[in-house]
Amino acid sequence: MSATLEETNVTYEELADLENEFDAAETEIIRHQYNLTKALYAKRAELVAKIPKFWPLVLEQAPMDIDEYIQPSDSALLLSALTSLSVSRFEIDADAKKGDPRSVAIRFEFADNDHFADKVLEKKFWWRYSRDGFASLVSEPVDIKWKKGKDLTDGLLGLVKAAWDEQQAAPKKEVKKGPKAEKVELTAKQKALKEKIDKTGMGGVSFFAWFGFIGENISAEESAAVLQEDEEERRKRKAGEEAAEKEDEEMDEDESEDEDEDEDDDDLEIFPTGDAVAMAITDDLWPNALKYFCEFSSGARDNRRWLTCSSSSARARRS
Amino acid sequence: MSATLEETNVTYEELADLENEFDAAETEIIRHQYNLTKALYAKRAELVAKIPKFWPLVLEQAPMDIDEYIQPSDSALLLSALTSLSVSRFEIDADAKKGDPRSVAIRFEFADNDHFADKVLEKKFWWRYSRDGFASLVSEPVDIKWKKGKDLTDGLLGLVKAAWDEQQAAPKKEVKKGPKAEKVELTAKQKALKEKIDKTGMGGVSFFAWFGFIGENISAEESAAVLQEDEEERRKRKAGEEAAEKEDEEMDEDESEDEDEDEDDDDLEIFPTGDAVAMAITDDLWPNALKYFCEFSSGARDNRRWLTCSSSSARARRS
Repeated sequence: MSATLEETNVTYEELADLENEFDAAETEIIRHQYNLTKALYAKRAELVAKIPKFWPLVLEQAPMDIDEYIQPSDSALLLSALTSLSVSRFEIDADAKKGDPRSVAIRFEFADNDHFADKVLEKKFWWRYSRDGFASLVSEPVDIKWKKGKDLTDGLLGLVKAAWDEQQAAPKKEVKKGPKAEKVELTAKQKALKEKIDKTGMGGVSFFAWFGFIGENISAEESAAVLQEDEEERRKRKAGEEAAEKEDEEMDEDESEDEDEDEDDDDLEIFPTGDAVAMAITDDLWPNALKYFCEFSSGARDNRRWLTCSSSSARARRS
Repeated sequence: MSATLEETNVTYEELADLENEFDAAETEIIRHQYNLTKALYAKRAELVAKIPKFWPLVLEQAPMDIDEYIQPSDSALLLSALTSLSVSRFEIDADAKKGDPRSVAIRFEFADNDHFADKVLEKKFWWRYSRDGFASLVSEPVDIKWKKGKDLTDGLLGLVKAAWDEQQAAPKKEVKKGPKAEKVELTAKQKALKEKIDKTGMGGVSFFAWFGFIGENISAEESAAVLQEDEEERRKRKAGEEAAEKEDEEMDEDESEDEDEDEDDDDLEIFPTGDAVAMAITDDLWPNALKYFCEFSSGARDNRRWLTCSSSSARARRS
């Protein structure tokens, strides 16, 4: 396809700049939406707090891309103990102007239960830009205080957390990326995690392993630097095209190196699709919770919407 | 689940009213987004017009929920002849205040080709509210002037259009809905269509059959009346709860009758998921066209975004 572009007088940079403008618009829309609906979500929270089992029942009607990860034992625990679920855009809550509206915190609240001592499990996802040309949601493992013999992840989550803590405590070193990189030696804790993952097989792993999702290894500093360099490059490009184009060619080399890296990262990931699940919760389950609660009929056609629990007077939300 | 609600002091009407407020917010957001991005889409159209085969290549990278309907012969035609694709929200273009921003027009433009004489195929979808408590996208069949022996739908689309025209010309009669309804006699044209559908089987049907999608039979008048009655009911409810609740019970009867109707409607539908495809084009393919065009690497993880064709300087759009 690059051949196609090269036959024209359209440059990569023109497309990139346009993408950048779209991105700014999208960011502004998420921000606007968040502000416009904040009071409504607060009202909803107040209302559904009076409905016993509201959130467990919503989760039982969850779309496939969430439901497929909820095992029967997860479901039993959620039904007996989940009292609240909420999504916030914590970066703009903290800094309305500079915060990235794509970063989300997903918070689960629990009643006393047999499985763990925590009352709140909150998982944060940061929207980060990486030097290899991707943007994605990254996270940190959230530990759960399992009661003895009641760990639904059978120790996996604890191993992830231990390996993470070890890595955070270690002195930073520049890791050479790409196929030319030497194979990085796993630490003892990472080895233990890897063995456990290999032994377990990730087929029927508990939904609670989701709290262990990490994603790409992109620090806040790297992301900020990438954003700033991009800004810089765009500014230079407006001044004179040639310098930027040369830089471009250098970057292209990196591109072919991405895939190997990914695989390595995924090796120690106990819930590789954790970012997708976070997006499904944020963009679907959370805005459409009333709809899922009211969805008695599984016979309803996909793109029709049950308007209300009683079918009388409200309108469907568009997902 | 209705049992759950009945154990509380939360009423269906409270949930319905809240849904209604969310719906108003959502509508306002779509409107805002449309206005905010209009100039960007115009700029994009200008830029990509200079890239040969831009839209056919985007369609080749289309997400599964569109791609699965594009047969090899469709693909060949699109690649040789599709010159432009665009999505507009025609109801708010016509009437910024009253138009429903969820209604969309999807427009395909073509160069001279062996298959049909049309230069433009535009399909409109109206967001309509039906008396049985659903909202959905409905449409009308768009005919295609196939050249002799070149009809990719093998006559199906023409039969749908003929049956539709006949129905539109017939005097309106009140159709009794639900299980108590007498079986409606098919007209000769409908019978011919049904026979053809049964004989064909809908497995490998051409993407162009999508132009024949109709959806629920909801007139503009019915939709407007439903909206107005709802408004009325909400107003009354604010004055005194009881009357509204009684009405509610009456409506509940209708609910159980929905499914039978659906099946009948679907019998004559040559592309039953036409509304889902329209949504996938509107909400995914159209906003993310640059991303799809640039997506060389199928190895990229689902929720990471290629930032640009060259990976150097732009940011990914969130789908």
